[in-house]
Amino acid sequence: MTEQNLKVFSDDVALINSVIENLGYLKCTSDRSNSVIAAEKYGLCAGGKRIRPVLCLEFYKLFGGKEDISEIAACLELIHTFSLIHDDMPEMDNDSMRRGKPSVHAAYGADIALLAGDGLSLLPFEIISANALAGKISCETAVKLTSYLSCASGNMGMIMGQMLDIISEGQDVDIEFLKEMSAKKTGCLLMASAAFGAILAGAEQCDVKRAEEYAANLGMSFQIVDDILDVIGTESELGKPIGSDKIRNKNTFADVLGIDKAYELAQRYTESAVAQIKDLNGSQLLCELASDLVKRRM
Amino acid sequence: MTEQNLKVFSDDVALINSVIENLGYLKCTSDRSNSVIAAEKYGLCAGGKRIRPVLCLEFYKLFGGKEDISEIAACLELIHTFSLIHDDMPEMDNDSMRRGKPSVHAAYGADIALLAGDGLSLLPFEIISANALAGKISCETAVKLTSYLSCASGNMGMIMGQMLDIISEGQDVDIEFLKEMSAKKTGCLLMASAAFGAILAGAEQCDVKRAEEYAANLGMSFQIVDDILDVIGTESELGKPIGSDKIRNKNTFADVLGIDKAYELAQRYTESAVAQIKDLNGSQLLCELASDLVKRRM
Repeated sequence: MTEQNLKVFSDDVALINSVIENLGYLKCTSDRSNSVIAAEKYGLCAGGKRIRPVLCLEFYKLFGGKEDISEIAACLELIHTFSLIHDDMPEMDNDSMRRGKPSVHAAYGADIALLAGDGLSLLPFEIISANALAGKISCETAVKLTSYLSCASGNMGMIMGQMLDIISEGQDVDIEFLKEMSAKKTGCLLMASAAFGAILAGAEQCDVKRAEEYAANLGMSFQIVDDILDVIGTESELGKPIGSDKIRNKNTFADVLGIDKAYELAQRYTESAVAQIKDLNGSQLLCELASDLVKRRM
Repeated sequence: MTEQNLKVFSDDVALINSVIENLGYLKCTSDRSNSVIAAEKYGLCAGGKRIRPVLCLEFYKLFGGKEDISEIAACLELIHTFSLIHDDMPEMDNDSMRRGKPSVHAAYGADIALLAGDGLSLLPFEIISANALAGKISCETAVKLTSYLSCASGNMGMIMGQMLDIISEGQDVDIEFLKEMSAKKTGCLLMASAAFGAILAGAEQCDVKRAEEYAANLGMSFQIVDDILDVIGTESELGKPIGSDKIRNKNTFADVLGIDKAYELAQRYTESAVAQIKDLNGSQLLCELASDLVKRRM
């Protein structure tokens, strides 16, 4: 990424971090009755890459948006964190570490983690509707965002992906199954993130679709690189034990294709992502983001 | 309840049952990739009283609504079922039976139950926004419903109630604490249910408030009677082991007040509920429902 775009990117991340840290909905005292909210905040502030809200902010700018939509962009991180908290739980992946820190259930107990995930799954809808009731976005926009977000994370989206992940553990699966699983588990929410930005900017439906296509391809590339890093990364780079997919008999792109072919496939998806938007004025950052994500080491 | 109102009530329940059974969002084949949806349907069809959607339908009619809003009314049962599925889980109440049948995690495993609860927490927002996008309700109405539902079930509503329940287990609490816990855990969603009906009918804000007040009082009475039945009910009437609150060191109105005083308090809440609406033409069914709930044996 160019120095200039890297600055924009890190400003976006800083903005989202600040919004999350200061979110009025998550204000809490040290009172024990606040521990669910404290756990939500802990999960949110554990150092994510903020890719989803950044996609929202950048597509918003790409399609001409000029307002501060950071609170709505943060909703995408809330949903992502909800899925991570529940995914890490003992009955799911049973991961006690996440990004180098104890995962939420390890830090707060499984009961609080369950409720914290639930709270973060509902809060985005509270925030989106509050923005509409306060006149910051139109009710039509709020309905579209609500629809995109609930579909992307629900039974036919992210939850379906987690389900496919569960049922395929220890089974032989083919590349098409992996693509479907990844599209659901990771892709849908990335698509919604890009669509959020485009919708908030009032983009045409065909441009919303382009944003979604970019994100779908980015998501595939992202997941493939994740799988590769689980094999070749180091624990300190990843913040979690490497080889954890293998230990749990997870099917990964790295397994099914081998490292080299998996990496080639990731590059092809990155190229397809870039192809969707490269002719748009101002799309350099998003193009570079796609290229950088395929080269990342963590 | 008069014979005539009993007929209306059971027609409402039958309508909601039929909507839930035929909900397109929950169509599933026997494919294993559908087991989350199958688990959601199992939880939904385990024989609930459908009080929440009935409140929605009846307040809608009370304030002059004439359309079929049953799909939106069913959303309240979806959220209620989500909370029951997660509440029953091993890390929460660890109840392996619910309404005389294995609870969702006992029947499908804790991983699927976790995802099924998640799916049911998101689906209502998909349904509400789809109804708005299809022009069946206005976007303004959809935003209000989304706001009421997410607030009622979120961090400051139902989830806060579950949190208070967890932290108070085995502790000495007073009657004010129990009232707050019950208001959050049960009351908020009942209030949203009544508000849904009023909002969908286009009622004035003061009438939405009356509907909510009725439901808040009904909720307190309902919870107190629940606590009493856990002491004096029979297992076959309740469909779950009696005395389960005692075994888990739960604080209940029956414990803190004794059976007789708890029953008196329930009756006072019922009277307050009725007082909110009894001067409204056509409110007999809702008045009788409140009286009947305090007399119920299951």
